Amino acid sequence: VKTLRQLGERGLIERLRRLLPRGRGVVAGIGDDCAVVRAGRGRLLLLKTDAVVEGVHFDKRATPHQIGWKAMARALSDIAAMAGRPRWALVTAGLREDTAARTIAGIYRGLAAAAGRFGARIVGGETVRAPGPFWLSVALAGEVEPRHLRLRSGARAGDAIFVTGTLGGSIQGKHLAFTPRIREAQWLVRHAPVRAMIDISDGLARDLGHLCRASRVGATLSAPAIPMSPPAGGCLQRALDDGEDFELLFTTPAAAAGKLLSAWRQAFPELRLTRIGAITRGGGILLGDELGHTRKLHESGYDHFQPSHA
Amino acid sequence: VKTLRQLGERGLIERLRRLLPRGRGVVAGIGDDCAVVRAGRGRLLLLKTDAVVEGVHFDKRATPHQIGWKAMARALSDIAAMAGRPRWALVTAGLREDTAARTIAGIYRGLAAAAGRFGARIVGGETVRAPGPFWLSVALAGEVEPRHLRLRSGARAGDAIFVTGTLGGSIQGKHLAFTPRIREAQWLVRHAPVRAMIDISDGLARDLGHLCRASRVGATLSAPAIPMSPPAGGCLQRALDDGEDFELLFTTPAAAAGKLLSAWRQAFPELRLTRIGAITRGGGILLGDELGHTRKLHESGYDHFQPSHA
Repeated sequence: VKTLRQLGERGLIERLRRLLPRGRGVVAGIGDDCAVVRAGRGRLLLLKTDAVVEGVHFDKRATPHQIGWKAMARALSDIAAMAGRPRWALVTAGLREDTAARTIAGIYRGLAAAAGRFGARIVGGETVRAPGPFWLSVALAGEVEPRHLRLRSGARAGDAIFVTGTLGGSIQGKHLAFTPRIREAQWLVRHAPVRAMIDISDGLARDLGHLCRASRVGATLSAPAIPMSPPAGGCLQRALDDGEDFELLFTTPAAAAGKLLSAWRQAFPELRLTRIGAITRGGGILLGDELGHTRKLHESGYDHFQPSHA
Repeated sequence: VKTLRQLGERGLIERLRRLLPRGRGVVAGIGDDCAVVRAGRGRLLLLKTDAVVEGVHFDKRATPHQIGWKAMARALSDIAAMAGRPRWALVTAGLREDTAARTIAGIYRGLAAAAGRFGARIVGGETVRAPGPFWLSVALAGEVEPRHLRLRSGARAGDAIFVTGTLGGSIQGKHLAFTPRIREAQWLVRHAPVRAMIDISDGLARDLGHLCRASRVGATLSAPAIPMSPPAGGCLQRALDDGEDFELLFTTPAAAAGKLLSAWRQAFPELRLTRIGAITRGGGILLGDELGHTRKLHESGYDHFQPSHA
């Protein structure tokens, strides 16, 4: 009997995609950052759920406020990846009966702080008795104008690849306090010809892999260009593989790159935007070094159901 | 330090309601069956999440298909309570790594069967690694025409109280295979002056209590009229207190009762509709017997965080 561990996350998504065919009015579904559905009269609704589990996504050192912030910000980041505006959130909490009331209040304050900062509101949800590890599931609905929607699948050969912020070592703290790039994504689709976009949750290598597969293209990354976070400690592999940076990864036509970079510096002086490579016709993802040597990149990023080095 | 057990479900909801103020454009929020939000251009969106946990909502005797059906049908029932049309579902599954792939497929088939039967579609979600008991959280979005929306809060003194189907003993099997009353609710708001509606998830006594509190009214139930399910074994207390029947409980003006009952028999010949009492000005919920004696009803129904007989 095949188990989830053997199937892996991507294998499972493939199975579910076959089991649950996409219907009419569904613009994007299983396997995308958010589901995108036509809600009538030209409106697009973005729907996303994201869960965090004690011992998997956070440990006992995290404060209740941080846990709440992270749970909401993860879902917000997926709305950002599609350039949407987050609107309404529902929160489900699986709690042990001996959880302190003030812990719960702290978690909901963290959830509400993250939602409120980006214009979303918690409108419902429920709490359920759950023996075992504590978990939070956030369901978030957002809206996007059809002309602003961006998917993973729009990249074309020749596009420049960009990433916001810096990467790697998020586990040292950023994963509990990151800023979902809602405002940046909305600015981007209004000021640059963004063709494909995704947020980096599984790590640069893996999420670029998702984007390339969805767009049926390949990519070449420039190793010296990849912006590393201080906690990555100068280790390129960590900037490539570490998850939970929640930065935006996107492509534009190469000709638009220069103008975009200077407009970005005006709009977001405190957040880096870096051109890290180019989309290619195919052939997977290659990593080029200073000397012009390239090697094939393996997607060793995070899989929820497989040991890290299986 | 006060814990969740001491606070209880209603205490928790009260705290969260204070912590998370309802915003503009939110018609119904925390504490209602679904959140109801204005999605622009006169459209109302219904948003609901509902979770089931292994060992709490089902045990090892339940088949994967039944677990999936139940998880989806519970959320559908809340959409029914507001006379909405279910549209899009997201499913989050917290799974152990050793879960068999065919178990997961069975669960999703059950989820898809329940959604598909009522016109909804699973458009996304995620699976997360969760040590401990297995859980499923369903987020469901639906739509309702503003003139068809019904809340818990519309009941008035003098209204007749109705319930669909029969009550009690759901734990014997119905809780895994019940039919959410989507079609019946949509018919009701088109054919009868329904003033307040709720689905019975926590038990008749408790859910009538929710409806009365929201409407600031009381009620008198007629004990002999309450329709008992065979598994209730003739025990009135079970029909009053057992949860998970997922029938509709609603009120109309008394003058409309006769016409409604005969129209119902034409429309749904196989499902009972029973007039079980009347809404009163206040004074809690009274239970009247054959001899005209009344006693005050205590809401001893199910609380997720409190022992049954605390």
